[in-house]
Amino acid sequence: MSLIERSTQQAAPEVRGPKHSARVGMIGAGQLARMSFQAAVSLDVELTVLAAHDGQPAARAGATWLAGEPSDFATVAELAANTEVVTFDHELVQPALIEDLTAKGVLVRPGAAALRMASDKLHARTQMRALGFPVPHFAEVATPAEAEAFAADHGWPIVLKSVSGGYDGRGVRVANSADEARQILAAGGSWLAEEFVDIAMELSVLVARTPSGFVQVYPIAQTTQEDGICREVVIPADIPDGLATEVRELATSLVNGIDACGIVAVEMFITQDGHPVICEIATRPHNSGHVTIEACVTSQFENHLRGVLDWPLGSTEMRAPAAAMVNVLGSADGKTPLRLPAALAVEGASVHLYGKTELPGRKVGHVTATGETTSEALETARACVRALSGQ
Amino acid sequence: MSLIERSTQQAAPEVRGPKHSARVGMIGAGQLARMSFQAAVSLDVELTVLAAHDGQPAARAGATWLAGEPSDFATVAELAANTEVVTFDHELVQPALIEDLTAKGVLVRPGAAALRMASDKLHARTQMRALGFPVPHFAEVATPAEAEAFAADHGWPIVLKSVSGGYDGRGVRVANSADEARQILAAGGSWLAEEFVDIAMELSVLVARTPSGFVQVYPIAQTTQEDGICREVVIPADIPDGLATEVRELATSLVNGIDACGIVAVEMFITQDGHPVICEIATRPHNSGHVTIEACVTSQFENHLRGVLDWPLGSTEMRAPAAAMVNVLGSADGKTPLRLPAALAVEGASVHLYGKTELPGRKVGHVTATGETTSEALETARACVRALSGQ
Repeated sequence: MSLIERSTQQAAPEVRGPKHSARVGMIGAGQLARMSFQAAVSLDVELTVLAAHDGQPAARAGATWLAGEPSDFATVAELAANTEVVTFDHELVQPALIEDLTAKGVLVRPGAAALRMASDKLHARTQMRALGFPVPHFAEVATPAEAEAFAADHGWPIVLKSVSGGYDGRGVRVANSADEARQILAAGGSWLAEEFVDIAMELSVLVARTPSGFVQVYPIAQTTQEDGICREVVIPADIPDGLATEVRELATSLVNGIDACGIVAVEMFITQDGHPVICEIATRPHNSGHVTIEACVTSQFENHLRGVLDWPLGSTEMRAPAAAMVNVLGSADGKTPLRLPAALAVEGASVHLYGKTELPGRKVGHVTATGETTSEALETARACVRALSGQ
Repeated sequence: MSLIERSTQQAAPEVRGPKHSARVGMIGAGQLARMSFQAAVSLDVELTVLAAHDGQPAARAGATWLAGEPSDFATVAELAANTEVVTFDHELVQPALIEDLTAKGVLVRPGAAALRMASDKLHARTQMRALGFPVPHFAEVATPAEAEAFAADHGWPIVLKSVSGGYDGRGVRVANSADEARQILAAGGSWLAEEFVDIAMELSVLVARTPSGFVQVYPIAQTTQEDGICREVVIPADIPDGLATEVRELATSLVNGIDACGIVAVEMFITQDGHPVICEIATRPHNSGHVTIEACVTSQFENHLRGVLDWPLGSTEMRAPAAAMVNVLGSADGKTPLRLPAALAVEGASVHLYGKTELPGRKVGHVTATGETTSEALETARACVRALSGQ
């Protein structure tokens, strides 16, 4: 009899031991759910995830899981019925699902208004502009003529973004001319034109918030993106105190303003003349916060759980002076296996693998290091990722 | 249809996604296995535990598990057949089981010789004395007359320890007189008499070792025991450099000498005149090392897995200047529930709950804090435990 068959048979309906501290349902079972699961175990919170199949990172790790897609309202309702609060590891969720759950009396956190800020880029920018937050100039564009009119005001190139559905750089294109804009818009869908910001630095500010309005802000992260995918993160960002204060205040007022809870990542550009511009909002644990597992007193994953449960938030203070994270992407040929023992020989690094099939360019893990300076930590993390990738 | 029934039905025999980095079997499913499981997820190591039932801490957390007792050789063989190496979360294992597995070609780590040093106190002391390690004066005693003869040489009180099976202070008694010794020995079994050491300080040195002989030593921990149960731990221990060097060297030579692998905890007394005496050996992750999850670059749980897999060991350096751990014990009446949200309000502490029924005095969790000094960290951890216990 195989091990797996035995485990299946032994999953008895009655559970021994005390009640869990809390039961949280998470829609999604990727690496964010997987690391949330690890954090949940420490607090004896039962995290049940909605997974497409048993090979998804959180299900594979051992989280209780239900098979289904977010579009399967009946399964999501079942997830909700067995948990005290429902949350997400991504924001690509239909508003109708949230309405359906809310109508059934399910606690959904963050709620519909905050989720829409993360999933609908046009709505987010319109709201932020109305509230006085610094955002790039933008306009909804449906036709090449509208894109040209926008460029006439703000200059080429312009950035075209699909209004919803994009992540990791998907759905974001740069058009250098009217011809290029025409080709991009020919794909159909709703598009947003944005001025091309001359970026000096990219930052991410993670804010943890409870429904009661308590807030903890993480050290400001400086991120490096390539092709729209986060590659490296260091904390704390090397920026002047005055700018750091401005950035933290912007992120905090935004998160309060949209009444979010759990973790919110506010991504910003710093322009060449030193001003912050808000770029994206993610209402969930975020790639720029993986470094908090080792570097901060409370990880973003634990604080997301505490936030959606309306429990006191944990300290976001750093344990070490500086820290860095480097993502591990699937090899270009998708066939080079990771060399874990070689990577573990790099002293000072912490390896996190997600158990994902290594498709080219896919995020399959990350490495963190702490140190006296961000450059020291970054060197350690990079060396470990090179060893892991066989470079 | 209940959530659990659905989960059971969905445990399909084929597993999607890549192969795990490694598969480790652990005999035992207590809190040590639970925290090893959390560490295993980060490296995508599949940890399968041998559990008495699904309410045991590691099984409850989500580790793959097989139902059985260590005495059930057939089940342990099945565990071994599905994993690359078998290890333990406790040392109360019959030597015959290890012999049986080894005869079947199973990699058992640590091996029989090292395990016996942890499970058979008389054997351990005899070996250590023969190898020249400082141990208390001791003798095997079977009769009250033998106990009296020992006390005639070393003075009353004497310590009587059952040769095997004791942990957390069970099986350890102090006899102040021949009468008391007679009462204790009347319980039967094999006993060891030890001189009563006038203790200035209790230390624990955690050593990680690979089968290839690589070693990493953790910062020396200072422990506080009550009734033989570990209550508090701080790192680094406040001892002179010379003594620290001596203690680290003693622990390292001992661990090399017994050819152990994974984590070994060497517990020592420092006598009133400043000399170390080796007290106990545990060949597994240890209560004195829980603090390493937050305080060190690599936790004892990850290094135990790395050690038994013969992978490079991780750095044992501290991320913060000082750290403390306080155990959470079940309330005296066994009925006072833990107040988790109140505990989480204590800023700077990290809570670990094991999901165990709160029997009086039972270890049901622990709290860690880091800080600039051990006393600052200890105050934070203690405040959190008080809040958790409703005090």
